[in-house]
Amino acid sequence: MEVTNKYIVIKHHIEDAPKESHFEFKTGAFALSVTPGSDDIIVKNLCISIDPYQINRMKSYSASQSAISFAVPITPGEAIDALVIGKVVASGNAKFEKDDLVMGVFSWAEYSLVKEGSIIKKLESSEFPLSYHLGVLGFSGLSAYGGFFEVCKPQKGEKVFVSAASGSVGSLVGQYAKLMGCYVVGCAGNQKKVALIKEKLGFDDAFNYKEEKDLNSTLKRYFPDGIDIYFDNVGGEMLEAAVANMKAFGRVAICGVISEYTDSGKRASPNMLDVVYKRITIRGFLAADFMNVFEDFLAKTSDYLRTGKFKVIEDVSSGVENIPSAFAGLFNGDNIGKKIINLAEE
Amino acid sequence: MEVTNKYIVIKHHIEDAPKESHFEFKTGAFALSVTPGSDDIIVKNLCISIDPYQINRMKSYSASQSAISFAVPITPGEAIDALVIGKVVASGNAKFEKDDLVMGVFSWAEYSLVKEGSIIKKLESSEFPLSYHLGVLGFSGLSAYGGFFEVCKPQKGEKVFVSAASGSVGSLVGQYAKLMGCYVVGCAGNQKKVALIKEKLGFDDAFNYKEEKDLNSTLKRYFPDGIDIYFDNVGGEMLEAAVANMKAFGRVAICGVISEYTDSGKRASPNMLDVVYKRITIRGFLAADFMNVFEDFLAKTSDYLRTGKFKVIEDVSSGVENIPSAFAGLFNGDNIGKKIINLAEE
Repeated sequence: MEVTNKYIVIKHHIEDAPKESHFEFKTGAFALSVTPGSDDIIVKNLCISIDPYQINRMKSYSASQSAISFAVPITPGEAIDALVIGKVVASGNAKFEKDDLVMGVFSWAEYSLVKEGSIIKKLESSEFPLSYHLGVLGFSGLSAYGGFFEVCKPQKGEKVFVSAASGSVGSLVGQYAKLMGCYVVGCAGNQKKVALIKEKLGFDDAFNYKEEKDLNSTLKRYFPDGIDIYFDNVGGEMLEAAVANMKAFGRVAICGVISEYTDSGKRASPNMLDVVYKRITIRGFLAADFMNVFEDFLAKTSDYLRTGKFKVIEDVSSGVENIPSAFAGLFNGDNIGKKIINLAEE
Repeated sequence: MEVTNKYIVIKHHIEDAPKESHFEFKTGAFALSVTPGSDDIIVKNLCISIDPYQINRMKSYSASQSAISFAVPITPGEAIDALVIGKVVASGNAKFEKDDLVMGVFSWAEYSLVKEGSIIKKLESSEFPLSYHLGVLGFSGLSAYGGFFEVCKPQKGEKVFVSAASGSVGSLVGQYAKLMGCYVVGCAGNQKKVALIKEKLGFDDAFNYKEEKDLNSTLKRYFPDGIDIYFDNVGGEMLEAAVANMKAFGRVAICGVISEYTDSGKRASPNMLDVVYKRITIRGFLAADFMNVFEDFLAKTSDYLRTGKFKVIEDVSSGVENIPSAFAGLFNGDNIGKKIINLAEE
């Protein structure tokens, strides 16, 4: 059987902020059966994780990132791979059979043809919505958990600052921090997000960075005695201001630097004299580094969800054709929480 | 008994590169006996450590550094404290007596009047020159030892890059790294230093950064497979180039950023995307953080000196009146190795 598969490509490399016009909606004939003898797996994509880091793969070649598999450049005109949950339609691989639910690196498409290596895990029946396995129970959650606990090594009572605090990772970091007894302040780009951070997510305080003239003074106001932990999702001036406000032996976890992704000339210049005198540690990390704590993470976080201690914020759109606007929206702050594209029901 | 004490002050705060004209040579009457009932200690200074970080204390008030005792601003017209080895001339404190050799925070002067709290340690008779206790066996050595072993956590065979590699700390870092089986490249600012780094200190390779047009390409040439450890003494473009050339899980120890000390507008902007994708750790430190390993450091380093495995490079001048030119010279790259001012024989 053959269907018409809808998918999204980039028309050309993207060097600055992504716009819908940079993308192209394509269709193509797609066989739903496996060629006899092949070990292909055909997946119907159910929901897709939309993540800011993808913009770095849409740029023209960048040597520094080429060595890392999920940072390899995306080729204009070709399918864009992404974290997806799908259902197996047909399989030439004995490990997978029709109707298996799988999470893996598939594509911005209705259907994907993949090999076993692209499948990260099989999902057994879940008490939670499928999309949670892309967000709070998936790599966003693991970024928050690993980045906060393993990189920042928090102590009860420490002062924690989180940027992009209503985002897919930031919203979870703040909740982990509150649950272990830290004082947590978040920032975001509009009043609605700020209210949500304080009221729904339970941060101690939050502010709209767009309303602040001098971030250095802003952070001094929220942290008169300094910051122990800064969980950075944005880079740029916020990173500089945070470093200037860190306490001695403060830790900065660099999860992402979204403000720098779309402006190659923009880079944080944290004051290295502060880094020396205050013995600050700045450390970059990737969720994939923390697979060793995945089971712990999953057990604890599932429990927090079951007992209502954890709030999940998702921002869901539908349909392949809406992926470009959803993706571009990440860079305008349009999304609140984890951005998901739903394609089909389970 | 009273003598004429010679000492050095700054005329005003110094915001850029220090010049001899920024300093003033002063003299004053100085009593060599202790007021009865006081716990003062009078020290005749024998040799003085001349260190680049002092420039940061000569600037006008900098909030970020004010909380740290040895970073408190130096006041124009007043004595400049510094790491010194001296001999007790008179003491009202029962713990110290005449002729004791002491290391501590005294001053750029022939004589200092101090309290017990300024004395870091009493020096017993030493098999090594006194000046070694300010350099290779003192805080320069501890910076190198703690920064390299505790911060960088080196493994045998790793690739190590050291800037200011003929300097007081860099020259020691490279030797520790070679002794544990790392591959070590250093850089410095002239050909004489480069030769010394390779020939006397035994680094695997070295280059003159002033002859290089593109530091990024330079480091790629010396480290085609990337850098595991960068021991940073200079900051600025070199730090940026090193981050761009780090391997995955590379470690950057920030010991100092001398290229940024005298130019407040100059700051390194390492690419934080590299920091994330390559999971780089950038960590600032101070020698004083490693007092817990001081005895280990002293035992090992003394042994390396006794057995000829360690070479010491000192750059010695004499006389209080030569302190300003010696200090200013640090920022022109005039010194080779640890800069010491000798004032008197033991």
